[in-house]
Amino acid sequence: MRTASSIVVFLLASAAILSVQVSADCGLFPSPGVINSTELFFTQYVDHFSWNTSTYQERYYVYENYFRPGGPIFFYTGNEADVEVFVNCTGLMWENAEAVGALLIFAEHRYFGKSLPCPGGFMECGNYLTTDQAMADYATLISALRKQYNESSATIVFGGSYGGMLSAWMRMRYPALVDGAIASSAPIGCLSPKYVKESYWAVVSNDATSFGGAAPQCSANVNQAFKDVFDYMTTETGREILASTFQLCGSLGPNDGEAFANFIQGAFDAMAMGNYPFSTYYISGTPSHPAPAWPMRVACDYMATNASTAIGRLTNLYNAISVIDNITQDVVCYNTSGLNPSVYSPIWDFMVCTEDIINEQPYFAATGWPNDMFWEQPVYNHSRMNEHCTKYFDKTPRYGVLNDELGVDNIPASSNIVFANGLLDPWHSGGILQNISESIIALIIPDGAHHLDLFFSTPQDTAAVRQVRASQLHYMKVWIAEAMQSRKK
Amino acid sequence: MRTASSIVVFLLASAAILSVQVSADCGLFPSPGVINSTELFFTQYVDHFSWNTSTYQERYYVYENYFRPGGPIFFYTGNEADVEVFVNCTGLMWENAEAVGALLIFAEHRYFGKSLPCPGGFMECGNYLTTDQAMADYATLISALRKQYNESSATIVFGGSYGGMLSAWMRMRYPALVDGAIASSAPIGCLSPKYVKESYWAVVSNDATSFGGAAPQCSANVNQAFKDVFDYMTTETGREILASTFQLCGSLGPNDGEAFANFIQGAFDAMAMGNYPFSTYYISGTPSHPAPAWPMRVACDYMATNASTAIGRLTNLYNAISVIDNITQDVVCYNTSGLNPSVYSPIWDFMVCTEDIINEQPYFAATGWPNDMFWEQPVYNHSRMNEHCTKYFDKTPRYGVLNDELGVDNIPASSNIVFANGLLDPWHSGGILQNISESIIALIIPDGAHHLDLFFSTPQDTAAVRQVRASQLHYMKVWIAEAMQSRKK
Repeated sequence: MRTASSIVVFLLASAAILSVQVSADCGLFPSPGVINSTELFFTQYVDHFSWNTSTYQERYYVYENYFRPGGPIFFYTGNEADVEVFVNCTGLMWENAEAVGALLIFAEHRYFGKSLPCPGGFMECGNYLTTDQAMADYATLISALRKQYNESSATIVFGGSYGGMLSAWMRMRYPALVDGAIASSAPIGCLSPKYVKESYWAVVSNDATSFGGAAPQCSANVNQAFKDVFDYMTTETGREILASTFQLCGSLGPNDGEAFANFIQGAFDAMAMGNYPFSTYYISGTPSHPAPAWPMRVACDYMATNASTAIGRLTNLYNAISVIDNITQDVVCYNTSGLNPSVYSPIWDFMVCTEDIINEQPYFAATGWPNDMFWEQPVYNHSRMNEHCTKYFDKTPRYGVLNDELGVDNIPASSNIVFANGLLDPWHSGGILQNISESIIALIIPDGAHHLDLFFSTPQDTAAVRQVRASQLHYMKVWIAEAMQSRKK
Repeated sequence: MRTASSIVVFLLASAAILSVQVSADCGLFPSPGVINSTELFFTQYVDHFSWNTSTYQERYYVYENYFRPGGPIFFYTGNEADVEVFVNCTGLMWENAEAVGALLIFAEHRYFGKSLPCPGGFMECGNYLTTDQAMADYATLISALRKQYNESSATIVFGGSYGGMLSAWMRMRYPALVDGAIASSAPIGCLSPKYVKESYWAVVSNDATSFGGAAPQCSANVNQAFKDVFDYMTTETGREILASTFQLCGSLGPNDGEAFANFIQGAFDAMAMGNYPFSTYYISGTPSHPAPAWPMRVACDYMATNASTAIGRLTNLYNAISVIDNITQDVVCYNTSGLNPSVYSPIWDFMVCTEDIINEQPYFAATGWPNDMFWEQPVYNHSRMNEHCTKYFDKTPRYGVLNDELGVDNIPASSNIVFANGLLDPWHSGGILQNISESIIALIIPDGAHHLDLFFSTPQDTAAVRQVRASQLHYMKVWIAEAMQSRKK
């Protein structure tokens, strides 16, 4: 029995964020993970870019049994979650380590899990939560690991989502420490408003059509249902019907329409990101009740046919979002007061409010039919962003700085990066979708969701993801051989 | 009338440092400089890598008259001095700007000149004196200048010595903001003890032979004179003779031998770095009395023949160092208490004591004849360095971090950098002396001293430096054309 406060919501007001809440136990099938690995801690400077000498303990996991003398280091550049998630879920590293004799390392991102720069918690010293600091942590750790294991080991970094951005950036920023990067679902293009050509919410909507293998009429019916929602919001009676149909814990006020619609939108967002071909609780965070395979298709089955009444459509819509929001079938009611975005993930929200890390606007605003199945939403421009960030954190983003440092225009000067993106994943809208050079490669999984390629193999995997993983292994071997060759000189 | 406290000493204990004290008025011939330019200030974050919001005013100079629409930005990445020096002395930028229609920008390094992060001075907030912070200043300024002048302007950075390291690093770190770098006398190899193959002091000694155009016997006679110094230091009478011969303000104690010899060694260091083919006060810092052309040759004329007595050799040695130390001929006496290295340049010494920026050991210890013309000096190892830095700054260096980030092993992954080195400049021992790729080029000036190529042209210039400057202009044009081409896409 639970309320909606524990469900997965991917919203920062009207805009999606990368953050995921995941189970620490990833696989449905027996697979290696935390239980096989050693938990260790490394002393890091809280601030790598001043001469303050405060330190903290960064957590990382090691698995040595595949490591052979001269073998490479496979290094996961942890992102915004407890690192155990990535130890347990990054099958691509586990499944290829033995073939190349790799040491497996999974490093935790500062401020997450057990890697806490301040004993007093995040708000006490959130000032040192920056991507540059996190990358300096990883560089320092890689340097120390090389000294410990093998000074000339090739090092390949892996990451997904924001972690995929970090892995690409580690190669761009520390080419002598990092020989190559597997950057999965890394929407680096989101840093530049000019780059993104396809709307995030248009991709979510595409998942709810035959493109995503879903019922063709789904997206149109969802769009009509949103219109119903806003119609019902205009009257007291309508709001009562909505609260009842959607099993809300409280009532809806006349100004709650946008927040309530955002709550529904978030479920479709989660199902698009998590539109995997196998049953998993990676996105839902409900280990005992995994989401079904192809959750968007399942949800769309409820929206496949035209309902004869608005209430019928709303009931169907409720059933559709329940595919991800009420997998356990034990939700008593949804707590709409939990829709405050800063309640969900204050740490990630802080990152957005400082580095503007995902640069969510203007392309993350849904604009409504026919562009997407949602409704026209207010643009989350700088002044609105500043207002939000000042309110919660007394900060405003440093717009554009991260793009100057590590945006798409910087990528061509680098090398040895594989960017993989699934076209069902809305984050591919900011992804690198075309080869940039002979060694900066874009791989596409047409029927793939959010960093599908990083997971353990399953019998349900499609041919496309199998090919991408084979290609990734090919590049890993090329990079290892190149590194060994250059070390000999 | 002056004492030695105002002369140029390049010593950190027994090891040389990059820092130079220079006149703000560079040219002997009328040449453009500060007088032609506009002094401006740009608001920068004191700390780019945390969310503290303190700011300071960074100084920069602008000269717009050569700038044509679509022209490039020539950007000097200021190093450890008042930026006026570089405005006045960087002839390479002034002389080529008109041909390509360039905007000229000279940016001051934080903590120097008027660019002071704290009103209370260096020691109040020296914690933010790092190369990463300085580079972030430059990146922020370049980004703003592009918005102000022309978003698609090619940007070429220039720098000499530590400023040359900064210019190369700006290309490596911010390839989308910096299209190419002229890195002159940039001893990036000094960051790695493994890289440097030629001893710094061996190069200084080479300058005092026929290789440097000096009297062939000079180095042997200097070496013998140092032996005399240490002989004389062993007796009270001997020390009195030394104090008298070298016109010291005070007397020498039995333990002052190393410091006194270091003082003499520093003069040869300065004459090797400043061994230019024209008369200039760039190294001596004495505008009304410039050092002679080829100062080492002039000094060596005093050491050309074998003196018949030790006192004769010591007198010759005194005359030799007076070529740089007493150009003005008005030194009453040398103040040996001014030999404390932290008195000379506390800010630069702080940088050495935090980032270990020049990584001066073990290759900067002279080892004596026949390796060099000096004497066997105690290795300045980590424990000695730590002791020194703890005493003066309560800090110890972060050994190796800068090399991991920006050392020679990182260079091959970059592009569009010209490294120029003069073989008379002792800093070339840590320089990039061979092409690394098709676009990372090493240019050599066999008869060139410290970043000779950056100066204004003079009639005394040798063919070698003229060729190097022509080659540098060629690469600038290539980079500008490439940038223009890539912006069109």
